[in-house]
Amino acid sequence: MRTFILFMRKARTDNKFNIEDMPGSGGRIDLAARCVNSALWISHNMRDDSEIYCILNGPSNPPVTIRFGREIKRVSPDERSIGIWIKKALSEDFGKEWHIMNNGIMVARKSFQDVIKEMKDRPIYVLHEKGKKVSKFKKDSVIVLGDHLGIPSKDEKFALRNGEKISLGKTSYLASSCISIVNWMIDEDA
Amino acid sequence: MRTFILFMRKARTDNKFNIEDMPGSGGRIDLAARCVNSALWISHNMRDDSEIYCILNGPSNPPVTIRFGREIKRVSPDERSIGIWIKKALSEDFGKEWHIMNNGIMVARKSFQDVIKEMKDRPIYVLHEKGKKVSKFKKDSVIVLGDHLGIPSKDEKFALRNGEKISLGKTSYLASSCISIVNWMIDEDA
Repeated sequence: MRTFILFMRKARTDNKFNIEDMPGSGGRIDLAARCVNSALWISHNMRDDSEIYCILNGPSNPPVTIRFGREIKRVSPDERSIGIWIKKALSEDFGKEWHIMNNGIMVARKSFQDVIKEMKDRPIYVLHEKGKKVSKFKKDSVIVLGDHLGIPSKDEKFALRNGEKISLGKTSYLASSCISIVNWMIDEDA
Repeated sequence: MRTFILFMRKARTDNKFNIEDMPGSGGRIDLAARCVNSALWISHNMRDDSEIYCILNGPSNPPVTIRFGREIKRVSPDERSIGIWIKKALSEDFGKEWHIMNNGIMVARKSFQDVIKEMKDRPIYVLHEKGKKVSKFKKDSVIVLGDHLGIPSKDEKFALRNGEKISLGKTSYLASSCISIVNWMIDEDA
């Protein structure tokens, strides 16, 4: 299994955003949707071995984590479709424990640090412009990414207690592109 | 310059699609939008050295080619924003020659083969599951990709007259992921 964890600073944690304006009213829910697409879909299929946790830290009730994995159903790979499901997940009645929707999406009031704790004993990599250049990942890797605003320092430090700060090169890529590149690197090494 | 050429079999060539249903009513205009995102955007910026031609071959008046490059203005990286601009481009009055919109997007009644002809003297690579595995690209590469339906045989053969059939590995990736991976490979080699 490869696990992506996307930290989103301003993404809304309630359903009060407009699906026709995910960048503005959603706090970049569009970016989360593209990351879900890059993490899970290949041509004509979904990956068996990939999952992504989107950790939303915007108004009105942060934090909320939404998890998408292979078992999801009725989700199309376009931004709007994924965005609609994020909105539906945020409309569910859920608490600190994972709530599983009837199409397999999971949602909980978990923080970034809560999710990192659930990954203990797995190799954790935190993507950062100033990290060490890598092209290989250990088995069952957890790859942590920030959105356009980056991961707050205290959370990054928490992930790095048992993790490694890595980079994909000199260019700073979109989170969704990072996920495509990391997926390819892991495929190449399999 | 790196140039991506995306062949789309069913993408609409008029503006009669619903921006709220780009996968269905647009013939996968959502896929084109994600490819434009992957081709041009990096974190907090756009690439100086990349352009993408989306070649639409669906109803009602194929073919139409829309080109996005560094000089475009007022386009956001989300699918909906790019889709709206594709729809606007298709609403313009244009013919066989390039028509440049006031935000820099170019549109013309050019076919895949017309666009390939404009790339003569440049190295052409056609992505295909059965191509030769590559990780390096020559300077000023032209990278040709199909959508989920692939490139028709006669057009692929035309591109391969002066081109090479290549693959990124055993997995068949989404076109937008292929573009992210190729962009990274070219960056690495720079």
